[in-house]
Amino acid sequence: MLNFSYSNPTRLVFGRDAELQVGAQTLAVLGGKAKVLVLFGGGSARRTGILDAVEKSLEDAGFCVIEKGGVQPNPRMGFVRETIDWVRDQGIRAIVAVGGGSVIDTAKAVAAGIEYEGDCWDLFEGRASAEKALPVLAVLTIPAAGSEQSIRCVITHHGTKAGIGAECLRPAAAFINPDRFKTLPALQIGAGVVDMFSHILERYFSNTAHTEYTDGQAEAALRTIMEFGPKVLEKPDDYDSWCQIGLAGTFAHNGYFGLGREEDWACHAIEHEISGWNESITHGCGLAVVIPAWMRYVSPMAPERFVSFAVKVMGVEPQADDRATIELGIAKFIGWLQLMRMPTTLAALGAAECPIDAIARHCCRKGPVGHLKPLAAEDVEAILEGAR
Amino acid sequence: MLNFSYSNPTRLVFGRDAELQVGAQTLAVLGGKAKVLVLFGGGSARRTGILDAVEKSLEDAGFCVIEKGGVQPNPRMGFVRETIDWVRDQGIRAIVAVGGGSVIDTAKAVAAGIEYEGDCWDLFEGRASAEKALPVLAVLTIPAAGSEQSIRCVITHHGTKAGIGAECLRPAAAFINPDRFKTLPALQIGAGVVDMFSHILERYFSNTAHTEYTDGQAEAALRTIMEFGPKVLEKPDDYDSWCQIGLAGTFAHNGYFGLGREEDWACHAIEHEISGWNESITHGCGLAVVIPAWMRYVSPMAPERFVSFAVKVMGVEPQADDRATIELGIAKFIGWLQLMRMPTTLAALGAAECPIDAIARHCCRKGPVGHLKPLAAEDVEAILEGAR
Repeated sequence: MLNFSYSNPTRLVFGRDAELQVGAQTLAVLGGKAKVLVLFGGGSARRTGILDAVEKSLEDAGFCVIEKGGVQPNPRMGFVRETIDWVRDQGIRAIVAVGGGSVIDTAKAVAAGIEYEGDCWDLFEGRASAEKALPVLAVLTIPAAGSEQSIRCVITHHGTKAGIGAECLRPAAAFINPDRFKTLPALQIGAGVVDMFSHILERYFSNTAHTEYTDGQAEAALRTIMEFGPKVLEKPDDYDSWCQIGLAGTFAHNGYFGLGREEDWACHAIEHEISGWNESITHGCGLAVVIPAWMRYVSPMAPERFVSFAVKVMGVEPQADDRATIELGIAKFIGWLQLMRMPTTLAALGAAECPIDAIARHCCRKGPVGHLKPLAAEDVEAILEGAR
Repeated sequence: MLNFSYSNPTRLVFGRDAELQVGAQTLAVLGGKAKVLVLFGGGSARRTGILDAVEKSLEDAGFCVIEKGGVQPNPRMGFVRETIDWVRDQGIRAIVAVGGGSVIDTAKAVAAGIEYEGDCWDLFEGRASAEKALPVLAVLTIPAAGSEQSIRCVITHHGTKAGIGAECLRPAAAFINPDRFKTLPALQIGAGVVDMFSHILERYFSNTAHTEYTDGQAEAALRTIMEFGPKVLEKPDDYDSWCQIGLAGTFAHNGYFGLGREEDWACHAIEHEISGWNESITHGCGLAVVIPAWMRYVSPMAPERFVSFAVKVMGVEPQADDRATIELGIAKFIGWLQLMRMPTTLAALGAAECPIDAIARHCCRKGPVGHLKPLAAEDVEAILEGAR
């Protein structure tokens, strides 16, 4: 196990009517009344009533609320810059994000950008690091990205998806009301569940030895997602099942499952290229295509971990030959993805025409990606060819 | 699942030489140099060199260090009061506890007591609540109590062990270097491992429905402790195994495994009476006697959860008859306690002569204890009779 230093101060407010506590928690964070920005995406936040509920909670607590909608999926740097300019001189003291990962990541980028003197994209290109940010409070409308408790933030700029991680980006509070997930469309449910699964998987596939505690926790969380993902897809009004998915999704990405080990993240790096190339592609759907292809390519190089995955996560009976066990594990995983109604090939994703060689080169422009097996551009190309 | 609000901001610094970061972390907490109290127990903290390492780290960071030793196991209110009086006028800004649960709990009581105008025991008797406390940083010398990340604090006064929980009591930082556990005596290893196991168990044995995510996490952590407890007892110089026990012990009591459910805590309530009656009894040894007796008494009233415990934690093959499955689970648990070289009867604990009826009445002086099956004095008496 590796040495580590970890702290996750995000307050998690979970359960029915969680969003009604936004006002009180914002007061706890700021210590007094102020002007706050409520950021959201499209019309669904207003249609479902969650935006009104959050704003009323803030106003009842005495806050002056300014709202801004229009965050797109795979959120753009242009919108971030525009929002920074728009709010810079208004004396905003906190940002309340009402939405999923795209809205929360936009809020984080704006929160850090306001505190940074140069152009915000510098932070994503590694020319500067995010040291300070306005407090962000996240009201979740879809369990998927885990951004509401994470230090991560991903923004797209001219076809490049860049992610950063900084302690100052971890939200002050996250509000998760599983009742709010009942109206999600099937595609978003499936993609969200795959995304949270992958956040644990990218931490689980590690070369670091002697991480049995964290392995056991990760395997248990993956099994919970395996069990309840299909349940919420089949019965979106099942509050109790949403509770399990909501909890798994928010802990998946807060760092707990990566404690004391190197993490992989090759699949995310590859997928970001695909949804960077075509921004209409949903991240979770892209992952459902990339992960099995990555598994087929990488598993011969790190068979031990893939045997554990097959047996302890996918519930495969160990075979005499490890390769057979691994293949059964991958096959069962693909079966589960199909149960989640996810595409599992580039063609089914609508990305049959993607420029595989250019994508692979761009993916590895700063060097190999991944840790379990560091991948050069030719590896990424082979993986994507295997995903056709 | 129940609604909840949860935040655990404790910074966990974990791994080799973790204690060398105390100075830097204290600076991060206080924001500037100040006078800090280093609190410890007996001579072992000095003998093993950890006290010197911590004080040097603090001094190198520019802090003025005042030290005080002498904290006893099952720590006393008298010592807490004396320490409060001693440090009140010195302008202490933080307390660094170097030790196990007793030292950390004493530090917490002093930290809250300094900020409270009345007598500190009021906080433990429910006459006032702890609203504010000096920052506490905990350098762990034995993985057991989990106090280094918890909101809890237990102090003994005239034979009464009283526990409180308050957010302000959660340490600002915890330092866990598994290398430091290699010199622990077998009795302390066994008792510590049983204590951490029980912290998860008291949360796992719950009536709350639909807690599958948390159940899975708890079962996995219990299995990790089951596996690695005997390993560290057999080979105390096995760093990698201590990493698993160290992680399990510190997460066991930070609240994660209790999210969204009622917790039980009957076994702790009963054990506190026993080690309150005879302060030379080690808490973890007392738990090893109480828990099996509690299981035998309560399992007929909540068989479902005990079947899960038997199958998912103890690895028992499900039997045709649930009662048989449960009994196999309890028998296997007792076998594990014996492997951990723990007493499993009051006689073996050296408590054959304890006044069972008086203990049972004192235990329930404020009402029934426990949640899975609320226990009146006669139930506690029957449990202790069954532990003879």
